[in-house]
Amino acid sequence: MSNAKQENPDSSTTLTDEELRTLDAHWRAANYLAVGQIYLLANPLLTEPLRPEHVKPRLLGHWGTSPGLNLVHTHLNRVIKERGQDALCIWGPGHGGPAVLANSWLEGSYSTTYPDVSRDAAGMERLFRQFSFPGGVPSHVAPETPGSIHEGGELGYALSHAYGAALDNPQLLVACVIGDGEAETGPLAASWHSNKFLDPVHDGAVLPILHLNGYKIANPAVLARLPEAELDELLRGYGHAPLHVTGHDPMQVHQDMAQAMDTALDRITEIQRAARQEGGTDRPLWPVIVLRTPKGWTGPAEVDGLPVEGTWRSHQVPLAGVRDNAEHLQQLEEWLRSYRPEELFDERGRPRGQVLACVPDGARRLGATPHANGGLLLRELPIPPLERYAVAVDKPGATLHEPTRVLGDLLETVMAATGERRDFRIVGPDETASNRLQAVYVASGKAWQAEMVHVDEHLDRHGRVMEILSEHTCQGWLEGYLLTGRHGLFSCYEAFVHIVDSMVNQHIKWLRTSRRLPWRAPIASLNYLLTSHVWRQDSNGFSHQDPGFIDHVLNKSPEVVRVYLPPDANTLLSVADHALRSRDYVNVIVAGKQPCFDWLTLDQARAHCARGAGIWTWAGTEDSSREPDVVLAGAGDVPTQEVLAAAQLLRHHLPELAVRVVNVVDLARLLPAEEHPHGMPAAQYDALFTQDKPVIFAYHGYPWLIHRLAYRRTGHPNLHVRGYKEIGTTTTPFDMVVRNDLDRYRLVMDVIDRVPGLAVRAADVRQQMEDTRLRHHAWIREHGTDLPEVADWTWTA
Amino acid sequence: MSNAKQENPDSSTTLTDEELRTLDAHWRAANYLAVGQIYLLANPLLTEPLRPEHVKPRLLGHWGTSPGLNLVHTHLNRVIKERGQDALCIWGPGHGGPAVLANSWLEGSYSTTYPDVSRDAAGMERLFRQFSFPGGVPSHVAPETPGSIHEGGELGYALSHAYGAALDNPQLLVACVIGDGEAETGPLAASWHSNKFLDPVHDGAVLPILHLNGYKIANPAVLARLPEAELDELLRGYGHAPLHVTGHDPMQVHQDMAQAMDTALDRITEIQRAARQEGGTDRPLWPVIVLRTPKGWTGPAEVDGLPVEGTWRSHQVPLAGVRDNAEHLQQLEEWLRSYRPEELFDERGRPRGQVLACVPDGARRLGATPHANGGLLLRELPIPPLERYAVAVDKPGATLHEPTRVLGDLLETVMAATGERRDFRIVGPDETASNRLQAVYVASGKAWQAEMVHVDEHLDRHGRVMEILSEHTCQGWLEGYLLTGRHGLFSCYEAFVHIVDSMVNQHIKWLRTSRRLPWRAPIASLNYLLTSHVWRQDSNGFSHQDPGFIDHVLNKSPEVVRVYLPPDANTLLSVADHALRSRDYVNVIVAGKQPCFDWLTLDQARAHCARGAGIWTWAGTEDSSREPDVVLAGAGDVPTQEVLAAAQLLRHHLPELAVRVVNVVDLARLLPAEEHPHGMPAAQYDALFTQDKPVIFAYHGYPWLIHRLAYRRTGHPNLHVRGYKEIGTTTTPFDMVVRNDLDRYRLVMDVIDRVPGLAVRAADVRQQMEDTRLRHHAWIREHGTDLPEVADWTWTA
Repeated sequence: MSNAKQENPDSSTTLTDEELRTLDAHWRAANYLAVGQIYLLANPLLTEPLRPEHVKPRLLGHWGTSPGLNLVHTHLNRVIKERGQDALCIWGPGHGGPAVLANSWLEGSYSTTYPDVSRDAAGMERLFRQFSFPGGVPSHVAPETPGSIHEGGELGYALSHAYGAALDNPQLLVACVIGDGEAETGPLAASWHSNKFLDPVHDGAVLPILHLNGYKIANPAVLARLPEAELDELLRGYGHAPLHVTGHDPMQVHQDMAQAMDTALDRITEIQRAARQEGGTDRPLWPVIVLRTPKGWTGPAEVDGLPVEGTWRSHQVPLAGVRDNAEHLQQLEEWLRSYRPEELFDERGRPRGQVLACVPDGARRLGATPHANGGLLLRELPIPPLERYAVAVDKPGATLHEPTRVLGDLLETVMAATGERRDFRIVGPDETASNRLQAVYVASGKAWQAEMVHVDEHLDRHGRVMEILSEHTCQGWLEGYLLTGRHGLFSCYEAFVHIVDSMVNQHIKWLRTSRRLPWRAPIASLNYLLTSHVWRQDSNGFSHQDPGFIDHVLNKSPEVVRVYLPPDANTLLSVADHALRSRDYVNVIVAGKQPCFDWLTLDQARAHCARGAGIWTWAGTEDSSREPDVVLAGAGDVPTQEVLAAAQLLRHHLPELAVRVVNVVDLARLLPAEEHPHGMPAAQYDALFTQDKPVIFAYHGYPWLIHRLAYRRTGHPNLHVRGYKEIGTTTTPFDMVVRNDLDRYRLVMDVIDRVPGLAVRAADVRQQMEDTRLRHHAWIREHGTDLPEVADWTWTA
Repeated sequence: MSNAKQENPDSSTTLTDEELRTLDAHWRAANYLAVGQIYLLANPLLTEPLRPEHVKPRLLGHWGTSPGLNLVHTHLNRVIKERGQDALCIWGPGHGGPAVLANSWLEGSYSTTYPDVSRDAAGMERLFRQFSFPGGVPSHVAPETPGSIHEGGELGYALSHAYGAALDNPQLLVACVIGDGEAETGPLAASWHSNKFLDPVHDGAVLPILHLNGYKIANPAVLARLPEAELDELLRGYGHAPLHVTGHDPMQVHQDMAQAMDTALDRITEIQRAARQEGGTDRPLWPVIVLRTPKGWTGPAEVDGLPVEGTWRSHQVPLAGVRDNAEHLQQLEEWLRSYRPEELFDERGRPRGQVLACVPDGARRLGATPHANGGLLLRELPIPPLERYAVAVDKPGATLHEPTRVLGDLLETVMAATGERRDFRIVGPDETASNRLQAVYVASGKAWQAEMVHVDEHLDRHGRVMEILSEHTCQGWLEGYLLTGRHGLFSCYEAFVHIVDSMVNQHIKWLRTSRRLPWRAPIASLNYLLTSHVWRQDSNGFSHQDPGFIDHVLNKSPEVVRVYLPPDANTLLSVADHALRSRDYVNVIVAGKQPCFDWLTLDQARAHCARGAGIWTWAGTEDSSREPDVVLAGAGDVPTQEVLAAAQLLRHHLPELAVRVVNVVDLARLLPAEEHPHGMPAAQYDALFTQDKPVIFAYHGYPWLIHRLAYRRTGHPNLHVRGYKEIGTTTTPFDMVVRNDLDRYRLVMDVIDRVPGLAVRAADVRQQMEDTRLRHHAWIREHGTDLPEVADWTWTA
């Protein structure tokens, strides 16, 4: 059965007999190598009859998707070679590790990357042995896989990664295999609409290949069980023109697939020509290939009397009992020999010429493209001197700025300076302006290929600001963009960045692993600007209040994760500058968009951010002759303001108290040096926080995080942390800090409660603070606003 | 301009003039009340000219979506009343709080729920004042909103919530308004395919209403900018038959909307009749209404010379400067008076009869349906006696069982016992069998309405096990199901439950708030069974290893969150039994699916789980006359096994050492009693862990979580935790614990390192442990398996 659609009227003759033979030989070789990886420890060429000891003791891996991926790889090879096309492939069915590894080994890119896995019998045995073997390589496509930018473990991100890779790569074809399992996920479903953001002039092309093999682990796949007409409507509704390849007869499928590939690439060429040479602006219908082949194709048709090929039973290891079950062993040998390995590999285990006929050369090989090792292509980002953007600070706390708006001016320049190079993008879920970064629109509008109407603003067919109301798609785009060697920033409401918790997990895991691979060049860091944060959700309330992303990322590999809480505009500039220049990190920057007091000059800010944490002597009352009586520490813009207000109250009411004010920008500084590269040695921590004085720490997020970071410190028993206690509602910013016991009055009370031997007067002061909090509650109920003394508060030295 | 599609050939005559007048009056009243909530503090009926002091000092809220929601509500009222239809509505555009509150107040359900907000002028003033006001109600649809099961703050879950509500509610119509912003999200995009799982016989109907008002916060919406034919293809590809209502002339839109509603409900009736009375099994094309009306419809057309109505500028507060800008104030007054409030409300502020003509009675009112207060409908789950399922344990560690498989047998009975009632479901992303729960298929197959073929197994048009490869959809379905008064379980790979981090955030926030509302009856807890966990990802490796969901939920409200780590089959039974009976919690149960030693009899398990943490005297060597020398604590199945193996090694090598073995099932027990309802008082904690002896704690997840929980304990300085340190790969289970320093040999070394005054012999024992670890490394590199002494280890008393 083969079903070549009207698209391919003469598909039976696309390939010559010779081409057909060579493509099939390549495909068989890849299939053989995939099976070998799952099963064999030895005897890789089957030069002797298969015996139980040739088989791995633990059989792990996923056969089901592999033959389909091998088919796609074989046919991509053909068109890449024939057309001299630069290409990258995203292998969505991540469990298809055996297939992608097999192809990389065949084309030689694997042996170039890992010379001990040579392209001969000895290397083949190593290739087989290492697969899913302790100390070996994972069963998924992973950082270790040459040619990959996409971990296949967690499903959903193949297509957004593909689009990210294609952006600003006008010569690149990004093929993207989407499994019918992955197609059910939300992130994948949303990312189909990425074509409304792909500029046919400046961006490359994405060719989705929807691989319907019918089954997931144990269930049919939804898209595979739609009538073809309904599936076509869905794909056309996504903005694609479908091309179908359906069958299980290899020779016919080869012909149909070749025809579909040619049609798709011809269309892409035509779309790009129309946009680039004729200036056409109609949104094109990009091609999509729907490949419908049996799951576990060419594997055992039946095992133990149950159907396997074409069913979910071929998802993992079709023959499970090979070492103990002679019949299974025999079936495995027959299966392996069905690919006729002697025709495919010479006596030394090297692929024969026929097998390699379709393989492109050099960097055109999918396992060798520099786009999949983006650090090789990365250029320094042209960041202008910060002096131009810094706010003037004559004295601390005398002026107010919206920090993210100040950053927006800097980003505008970066956006403008990359106008020709096109290697910087800002992504965000419809919030760039809400987050006060709208200055960037001066340098670049918002990418948009769908209909435009006259009231629209800043939409731009060639824009590099990307806004879609899908955090998943934003994250996927940016990951793909960074992994292919470019720069970017994700600006997001703090609470809703949790939507991509699991995606950032996987990206951090990717970076941690790739940092250990000498052949992978460092890439630009993934930079989050989290704003519209927990303390300033006046109109949105509880659902928008969540600072837990910091906790989430700090569970992950310390060599990758950085968290910054700049307390004002100039510190935000300094932190952002550092983050944008850095490599192989995930930088989380939390900063407010509301007017915030300016505390530090640019120079002070730079020095403070370089230290990551420091004493603000100007804010405290300690004298250098002795240790302070108490440390008031702050991390985050709102907590810093409350700390300074508390310090001022203490100076006024209890001037004899020696108060030290500490500010923490770089949260990992609190960790021991052994736990994080930014961790402070004990002596440094003690010099900052003392070993035995009370430390009242006002923190932006969940207070216990500070304890989790600092529990090994000598002074930890004296550490008292205030922060967000998951008490949220629609209210004023100051009422929020009161409700969570982070307000200035509470901090003063905390100091009084913890410093021993205070004057009796301190009890009165404490009562006064308590009374003010009560007045606050009454006032806000009545007026809906904050106490005048809070609303009009300013810092006085 | 109005565009009634071929579906509504005679739409201009659907409504009589009188009906049209009454519907429009209702709609105008709702619009008036929505504007009033955003702006007014006083003068609610405009009985005097509007003055600045009548206006709120902080203008917060979202006007843009409100008139559309009011239109939908008005027309739902009509069909509910006319047809005597039970209905629930999910208001996806969550910022439309003013609209939903307005309607609830109009129909009287608001005043029934909140008697002080009476249906008269005084109540109207309170309704206005409380909106987005400190101490008042949030601007989103929220738990406080009568008739709602859906927080509108974080977008993406409207449709999956709607399906969850419709399941097993055959008489219920669940309307679901989907904003064009929300439609861009991944979770929403995936959830369209829920119709492949909706049983027209036993489930109710979902009527999606896609509201295209064109703009998000600052950008056009993708779906609103597709040509209508392309959008129709998309919707038909999703399995829906679209009905269009497009326009901005209210009278014509009323006619078209009434016609579309009638057509949709007639079709639904026909679909249900065909399935229920004729036994038809063809998957129906359910209707969807596409409502295209201007954003901010009926609001100011222009403000300060810029277009507002029909643009993104009407998203929030169209007139921002009302208290200071006389022109804005005048515009606001004109806007409010444009609804002709004097026709809508009598002199005492009560809605006039004409306004209420379309409103249904009693529990049919959308704000009064018991389905939106599901606890009212909740029945006890028929859980059989655990004795039938418990594994026999003659002595600890003598037998092995797969805990989740044992639980599967219990769940099969629950599934069977609810066969008639249909109020229990299991959801999971294609993993029910992989997680060893397949026994449930005996009692109920897997819900499936798409094509079936002969090799399929356990698919069932009426099944109550639901598997789709979208954690988001699973979570949304289950939330909707629970919130409408039913029971369920979500079984998920541990690593990938992070995909729904943000969804569980919102559900926990919902429960925390609803627990404080006396009128909301408790609902069944949301129960997670996390398995295929970090320590047993042999074939999948690093991408599948993440125990951080526990950390994530423990940041949230302690009155809602419970985390259980049952160490064996019988403890899992006991914990699951408790979780399934509980109310208003999120229970996270982490349990293995691989063979695990049985440690406790059912009675012991029950007692142990009731305590949540306890001493396993049989495993230690302490004698009751004195405190132990060291405490070996474990939480989680794999850590517990390592703890017991370490205890055994210590008994053998250092028999004079008094070792206490503690096991923790309920993680929150470690918290202080003031921090969590399950927290242990200090005396209890000290009695378990001692105040001053070394505690070596082997924990399932990230080790610092235990410190974060226990940092206030007196003995905390002596607490040494081992756990997952984000070191993962494809390897054997034992190699995983070795790599993360959680293995038995490391634990013994930890004990020796920390217990003072040990015999000199201890140094030799330590060296022996170290040597064994080295042997392990060499052995696994060579064989790919674990040391025989580990593979064959059994507990001996």
